[in-house]
Amino acid sequence: METANTLTPQAVRAARERIGRYIRRTPLLDSEGLSRQLGCQAYLKAEMLQRTGSFKLRGALNKALQLTPEELGRGLVASSAGNHAQGLAYAGRLLGARTVIVMPSTAPQQKIDNTRALGGQVILFEGRQVDRIAYMERLVREKGYTLVHASEDPQVMAGQGTIALEILEDLPDVDTIVVPLGGGGLISGIAVAAKAQNPRIRVVGVEPAAAPKYHESRREGHPVVIPAGTTLADGIREEVTGKNAYPLVERYVDELVLAGEAAIAQALRLLCADAKLAAEGAAVVGLAALLEGAFQVRPDEKVCFVLSGGNWEPARLAPVYAGADHL
Amino acid sequence: METANTLTPQAVRAARERIGRYIRRTPLLDSEGLSRQLGCQAYLKAEMLQRTGSFKLRGALNKALQLTPEELGRGLVASSAGNHAQGLAYAGRLLGARTVIVMPSTAPQQKIDNTRALGGQVILFEGRQVDRIAYMERLVREKGYTLVHASEDPQVMAGQGTIALEILEDLPDVDTIVVPLGGGGLISGIAVAAKAQNPRIRVVGVEPAAAPKYHESRREGHPVVIPAGTTLADGIREEVTGKNAYPLVERYVDELVLAGEAAIAQALRLLCADAKLAAEGAAVVGLAALLEGAFQVRPDEKVCFVLSGGNWEPARLAPVYAGADHL
Repeated sequence: METANTLTPQAVRAARERIGRYIRRTPLLDSEGLSRQLGCQAYLKAEMLQRTGSFKLRGALNKALQLTPEELGRGLVASSAGNHAQGLAYAGRLLGARTVIVMPSTAPQQKIDNTRALGGQVILFEGRQVDRIAYMERLVREKGYTLVHASEDPQVMAGQGTIALEILEDLPDVDTIVVPLGGGGLISGIAVAAKAQNPRIRVVGVEPAAAPKYHESRREGHPVVIPAGTTLADGIREEVTGKNAYPLVERYVDELVLAGEAAIAQALRLLCADAKLAAEGAAVVGLAALLEGAFQVRPDEKVCFVLSGGNWEPARLAPVYAGADHL
Repeated sequence: METANTLTPQAVRAARERIGRYIRRTPLLDSEGLSRQLGCQAYLKAEMLQRTGSFKLRGALNKALQLTPEELGRGLVASSAGNHAQGLAYAGRLLGARTVIVMPSTAPQQKIDNTRALGGQVILFEGRQVDRIAYMERLVREKGYTLVHASEDPQVMAGQGTIALEILEDLPDVDTIVVPLGGGGLISGIAVAAKAQNPRIRVVGVEPAAAPKYHESRREGHPVVIPAGTTLADGIREEVTGKNAYPLVERYVDELVLAGEAAIAQALRLLCADAKLAAEGAAVVGLAALLEGAFQVRPDEKVCFVLSGGNWEPARLAPVYAGADHL
């Protein structure tokens, strides 16, 4: 039976109706230069052009729009590396709800500033992700806030899945969709929606080699928590495999691959030079993985790269654009 | 009487029919962050997302598609700071015509490389723009090439004017269109097309303070040639006021204003931070001029900034993103 607690293709379609008027329908851009360099027909789903600078608005809005006035009145809380923070703050402002977001103290300044500019209350947390989540859960218990989980909530996943519906409208014969993999909400939503329309679409999930939790979980056969290293892909520097996302990833994601730091840096430069888009590191792990040969493509294969966001301040991009190959 | 040698609103509409299948219909992006910082309702026409990375493809294609096989067979030639070069090379490749482009030796490497990658033959010229143009005219006489002028040809202007038709479709109640002003072809096409649909639309032309030829021409009452200084806006570092563009600019452009180097650098950073777009210096002179207060806007005024292109290599953006306020 279908409920609000299950991620279904129907829930993704309903999400699109619900959030359509608030979000930007982002362009799907073909790129001759990237196609040549990557050896496939490359398409870019430019979610850095989404309002708030990342796809995260979709899921946060889809969840928040279904909350009761009482739930909204208690205030919304989340733990976030910074993009869900902005999405939730935007949704809270729209609906008149207070938002509190626990962010890592190492988050890019732009993510912190933008969240505050949208009216979000930012709590900077120093320490490991598992401890940050425990702290947030304590806030839920002690303050009564309503939790809007960045990746584990099925309605958040359904909101992110609307990206797949747009891709399939613009490129009905897409062969492969390549998705950055952090908490797992984005790829779960996309994979469920895409496979429902065409089970032959290949979905590739990409993690930074510095934070390969789903990769390790698949190898181990159960969801693991692993320490994450330093990475340019701060937006998906996750240590925790999601309890809800894990079975969806195992069922619907065809391949899990890794991207190294030098390739992420190279992909950021390529994307600027060839597509004129300013991405954050997490957004380009798919391009990076293909540059490293981490998965195979055919010359005539239509490969869509989901570029998840662009919330880095220019000063953070500068050294990478100048040639640096790590943070 | 309407001829191919006159820029008319009809010619712009015909251009749209002619080039529509080849170009990208670029998005018009609203920006909450820029609106707040600029004190108006800011919209961005993102022509860096155009194929070849700038609007110049529109005019080059509109001209080339009207050439006879004999004219195409003689080869196409132009003088260009680098964006018309890429547009013309793209058009030549599409139509099987050889292209030869005379570019300043100081052009950004990306513009040179991309032109060559599209099959264009690049001749790097060291010296002033007037001498570069004279050299190109000699090539026309001696080699028999067909000239596709970057800004003075009415059919090139008509192609650039298709931008206005798209803006007016997406934002019918636009109040002001702000346009970078180099050779004058872009603003002539946009102004003629926009004023034909609504004469109350304000058109503002923006030059770098280092190359203020139209500004000086308006003051002097006739087209002037002036030496240009060093500027981040290399794409519109023009010394020559166009004979054909000058009367159109005088008749249709409401205001001519200037942008300084530090403001151009600031605008590049703002555009990256708030819109996630990688522009070249010339593209942001409108944002820069407004940051400096060079023209007036109302808080409720819908102001569309034409972002002309993004053909800078990442290494050229890096120092500006790091904080530099000049080349």
